[in-house]
Amino acid sequence: MEIIGIGAGDPGHVTVAAVAALNRADVIFLLDKADAARELSDLRQAILDAHVPAGGHRLVRAQDPERVRTEAGYGEAVSDWRARRADVCADMLAEHLGPGETGAFLVWGDPALYDSIISVVDDIRARGAGFEVTVHPGISSVSALAARCGTTLNQVGGAVQVTTGRRLARGWPTDVDDLVVMLDSREAFAGFADDPDVHIHWGAYVGTADEVIISGPLAEVADEIRETRARARAAKGWIMDTYLLRRKPGSV
Amino acid sequence: MEIIGIGAGDPGHVTVAAVAALNRADVIFLLDKADAARELSDLRQAILDAHVPAGGHRLVRAQDPERVRTEAGYGEAVSDWRARRADVCADMLAEHLGPGETGAFLVWGDPALYDSIISVVDDIRARGAGFEVTVHPGISSVSALAARCGTTLNQVGGAVQVTTGRRLARGWPTDVDDLVVMLDSREAFAGFADDPDVHIHWGAYVGTADEVIISGPLAEVADEIRETRARARAAKGWIMDTYLLRRKPGSV
Repeated sequence: MEIIGIGAGDPGHVTVAAVAALNRADVIFLLDKADAARELSDLRQAILDAHVPAGGHRLVRAQDPERVRTEAGYGEAVSDWRARRADVCADMLAEHLGPGETGAFLVWGDPALYDSIISVVDDIRARGAGFEVTVHPGISSVSALAARCGTTLNQVGGAVQVTTGRRLARGWPTDVDDLVVMLDSREAFAGFADDPDVHIHWGAYVGTADEVIISGPLAEVADEIRETRARARAAKGWIMDTYLLRRKPGSV
Repeated sequence: MEIIGIGAGDPGHVTVAAVAALNRADVIFLLDKADAARELSDLRQAILDAHVPAGGHRLVRAQDPERVRTEAGYGEAVSDWRARRADVCADMLAEHLGPGETGAFLVWGDPALYDSIISVVDDIRARGAGFEVTVHPGISSVSALAARCGTTLNQVGGAVQVTTGRRLARGWPTDVDDLVVMLDSREAFAGFADDPDVHIHWGAYVGTADEVIISGPLAEVADEIRETRARARAAKGWIMDTYLLRRKPGSV
């Protein structure tokens, strides 16, 4: 089984090894969110068309079961969700992957960051499935955003924390001046818009034709980002965005 | 000017866009550390040979000035070092890049993580150089290590902090259970070898023929990592390693 990171949207960000793996696959499996937009499927298809022009593989989709999002019983909710995802994927493999065939799961960005496929496949193997797994790293939206903004993620000798909007909403983490924020539906950056020492690089749909980048002192661009984000989300029905918050070292 | 991330050593980890950029370049610039090993140059040459079989570009090397590593006057030391690096690179460009030619800087891993080229090029542009810059993201050693170990960097909904050995030696950072440690010549992981809740994924020369991976509970594998590291470093004269430390959430 191959787990293939395909980058954040730019077909050029797929690695040479990932291209080779895509071309070896007999069956390509996709685990989509329930609310996955049609446009995202089209974008993924364009990436496949660019790199596997001969086709020849079969595409099999399943829907990622939704996680029950309650604070109470969080541990049980996650463990139940993991089991349901493993069920869905094990069924998909059993039904569609023939003997001797090579299967591949496609993953947006890098499978190592905020993606569930690696743990899903671990769970299936823990149930006794006898296949080997190879993971192909991909360019994450974080890496694509930094490149697009021509910036580094860390300051000289400093640390950078990759975190979620949910966590950032609780406060700026201790001991770190550079933050990469993913999965932020609550616009947690707005909570720091009064701090004159915070700079933001924000990007949506990075690497695609609809890319929007806004960079500047957070105090000056926070409103513009919120408006742009709301407009884009309303127009397309979905948004995929990431941002880097940078604070001058020693400013707190 | 193109800044091209070429991955951490595996020629397959170069992206399709980076391959195209390598093939467009008339002059490829390399900024090497003073103690850069011959083997690293050979590895980089193998990556170029794999992806630019026709050759045709000129290779120009310069030596990255060393940073004076004192705690006192740290700010001035960094600012002086930046100016000297910009001098070296501006001279290299002026001397070797002809009118209308395309230049490219090669960077190990991802230019966004613990690399100086982006800021060097910013400094040269701040002096009035009139070129545009495109950055091509690359697969970092972090991403390569996670893929090789078949692990994610974050736990479900958790944060991950990318940091240095120097910072880790001061203590485990607050509010984060997953750490990626780079540039650790002091083996700072050893300071946590008594904690039964810490797991490590350690990798050296990841993606190359000499790759070594050691994963396990830190208390059980810390000595093996130190011995393996010392042996490899002595045998080759250099080491390039990265590791992920993972603590059970809520264990402190």
